Amino acid sequence: MANIQQVAEEAGVSVATVSRVLNKQKNVTEKTKALVEEAIKKLNYEPNMLGRNLRNSETRLLLIIIPNISNPFYLEIIKGIESTVISQKYHILLCETDSNPDRENIYFDLVKNRMADGIISMDPAINGESLVNLSQKYAIIQCSEYIIGSDIPYVTIDNEEAAYRAVKHLIKIGHKRIALMNSDERFLYARQRKLGYQRALEENGIAINDNYIFQTNRLGFEYGQQIMKKILNLPDRPTAVFAVSDLLAIGALKEVNSKGLHIPNDIAIVGFDKIDFSNMTHPALTTIAQPMYKMGVIAANMLINKIKGEKVESMILDHELVIRGSTSG
Amino acid sequence: MANIQQVAEEAGVSVATVSRVLNKQKNVTEKTKALVEEAIKKLNYEPNMLGRNLRNSETRLLLIIIPNISNPFYLEIIKGIESTVISQKYHILLCETDSNPDRENIYFDLVKNRMADGIISMDPAINGESLVNLSQKYAIIQCSEYIIGSDIPYVTIDNEEAAYRAVKHLIKIGHKRIALMNSDERFLYARQRKLGYQRALEENGIAINDNYIFQTNRLGFEYGQQIMKKILNLPDRPTAVFAVSDLLAIGALKEVNSKGLHIPNDIAIVGFDKIDFSNMTHPALTTIAQPMYKMGVIAANMLINKIKGEKVESMILDHELVIRGSTSG
Repeated sequence: MANIQQVAEEAGVSVATVSRVLNKQKNVTEKTKALVEEAIKKLNYEPNMLGRNLRNSETRLLLIIIPNISNPFYLEIIKGIESTVISQKYHILLCETDSNPDRENIYFDLVKNRMADGIISMDPAINGESLVNLSQKYAIIQCSEYIIGSDIPYVTIDNEEAAYRAVKHLIKIGHKRIALMNSDERFLYARQRKLGYQRALEENGIAINDNYIFQTNRLGFEYGQQIMKKILNLPDRPTAVFAVSDLLAIGALKEVNSKGLHIPNDIAIVGFDKIDFSNMTHPALTTIAQPMYKMGVIAANMLINKIKGEKVESMILDHELVIRGSTSG
Repeated sequence: MANIQQVAEEAGVSVATVSRVLNKQKNVTEKTKALVEEAIKKLNYEPNMLGRNLRNSETRLLLIIIPNISNPFYLEIIKGIESTVISQKYHILLCETDSNPDRENIYFDLVKNRMADGIISMDPAINGESLVNLSQKYAIIQCSEYIIGSDIPYVTIDNEEAAYRAVKHLIKIGHKRIALMNSDERFLYARQRKLGYQRALEENGIAINDNYIFQTNRLGFEYGQQIMKKILNLPDRPTAVFAVSDLLAIGALKEVNSKGLHIPNDIAIVGFDKIDFSNMTHPALTTIAQPMYKMGVIAANMLINKIKGEKVESMILDHELVIRGSTSG
C-alpha cells in the first residue's frame, strides 16, 4: 500500500501539504488540493488512523503489553522504551495481560477507541490473529516475541543461536548430561531456544535425552526450584542445566544450594536474559545477556516512526554469553 | 467541605438526584432542583471534578506514580492495585518519575487535562506542595509514603515500629554493634525507620554510633555493596547490619559473601520489604514483610471510592518480622 511520502512525491508537494489536504485544512489552494487528490486516487492511498492521530486526535499515549510485570526482563526493556518516548513527549500505559484474553481485548479497545496511539507488544501469549488484524489499521510493534509471517515489525534477538551458544559453552567445559529447563513451547522463543539446545547437542554427538527436557508454563523462581527438584532426582543426574530464563535459573540455583551440592562442581547452571539479580546470586549466574534496554529504545523508535506513517523494518540485535561463577568455579 | 452525600441528606433526595442536578440533566423536577440547589448553597458545597468525571467525562484511567520501576517492592503493590481496578473496569497508567520534577508535572497535567481520573502516588520524592494543591480538586491517594499533616488519604505501615522490631531482633540474638544502611533522610520512611533503629538501641542501653549510620540517595544492589564495603573497613566492625530496603540488604549480603566472610556468624543482615528475591539469596534474608499486595488493593479501593466522592480514611497496615538464614545460622 502506498504511504503518505509516495503521495507527496506523486503530487509534487510536501508531506505536510498532503496532510493538510487530508485534514481538510483551509490553507491549501484548490489547485494543490486537486493534485493531491489525484495522487491519492492514482496510488490507491488509504489514509489510515495512524497519520491522522498524529496530527489531529493524538493521545500521545502508547500501550506496552506485557504478560507479567514481575519479570525484570520486561522492566529493563520498559526503561528503554520510557527513556525514548518521554523525550518525544509520549507517555506509556503499561498493560499486564497475565495471559488473559479478556484483558488483552480491553487494551486493544483502547487503541480502537483512539485512547492510545499505538502498541508495543511483548506478550508471547498474545492472540496473534487479533494483533495482526489490529495492525492493519493501527501502529503496532512487537518486541522480543513476534508472529512469524506477519507484517508487524519486530525487534528481537536470535534466540536459537543464543541457546546454542549457552549449551555449547557447557559442552566445551566438559558437560554431556545437560538438562533443558524450558518455558511453554506454545511460545516462539521457547521453541527457538529448544532448537538451539538440540543443535548444540547434536553437533557434538550427544544424544538428546527426553527425560532431561522440562517445561513450565509460568516463569518465576518457584518453578525453577520445582523443576530442579525433579532434575536432582533423575537416575542419571544431569551435571548441567540450561534454563531459558534467569528467574528459572535462580530458582534452580537456590534448590541446588539448599541440597548442599556445589555449583558448578556438582551442577553447572546457565540462565538467559542477564537481569540485575543474576549477579547477586551465590555464585553469580552465567547467562545470555539480552540487550534489553537497547531493545526498548529501538522498539519505541520503531513505534513512533510507525505512528508517523514511516516505513519500519524489523531488527535482530546481538546477544552475549556472560560467563560467571555458576559454570566456572 | 461538604460532600455529595451530605447535600443529598440535606435536600432529602438521593445522591443520584444531586448528581442529575449537577449535570443539568432534564429528568429532575423544578421543585427537586430547587431543594438541591438550596442544600448546595447552605452547605457551601463545591462540586469538583471527581464526581463529575465518574458520570460524564471519565477516562477510567488511573495514574500510579512511582520513583523507579525496578524496585520489586513497587511491583508487588502495583499487582494489588491492578487486580482491584481491572475488576472495576479501570486501567492504570504507570508513571515513573525517576525523581524528576518535570516528569511529575507531565503526569499531574494528565489529571488536570482530564486524561486520567485520579492518582495513587508512591513516590517519596514527590513535590508535596504540588500534590496537596492537586488534591484539592482531584482524587489522590498516597501509598506507603505520605505527606504528614495533609488531607490526602494514605495507606502505609508503621515504619518506625517495624524498624524497631528488626533491630530489637538483632539485639536479642546478641548483637551490639549494629550498622544502619538508610535511604535518603529527605524521605519520611527513612526518617521513621531511623527513629526505630535509634529507639531499639537506646532502650537496650546501646550508645548510638554515628559512624555506623550510612545513607544512600538511591536504592539498588550496587549501593548496598558500596556501603557494605565501607562497613567492612570500619575500625570497630559492626557484627550486624539493618538495611531499610531488601535491595540494599541483598547487595550487602553479596559483598560479605564475596569477601569470604560468613553470614550470619561474621555479619548478620536484616532487610526490609520481603521482595520475592529475598528468599533466593544465600543465605535467605531476614526481613520485615510489608503487606505490599494488600496495600495495593486498599490503595486502589480508596482511590475508586474517592473518585466516587465518598469519604476515605487513611489506614496503617500490619507488618511482620520474617526470620531467615541471614540472622539465624
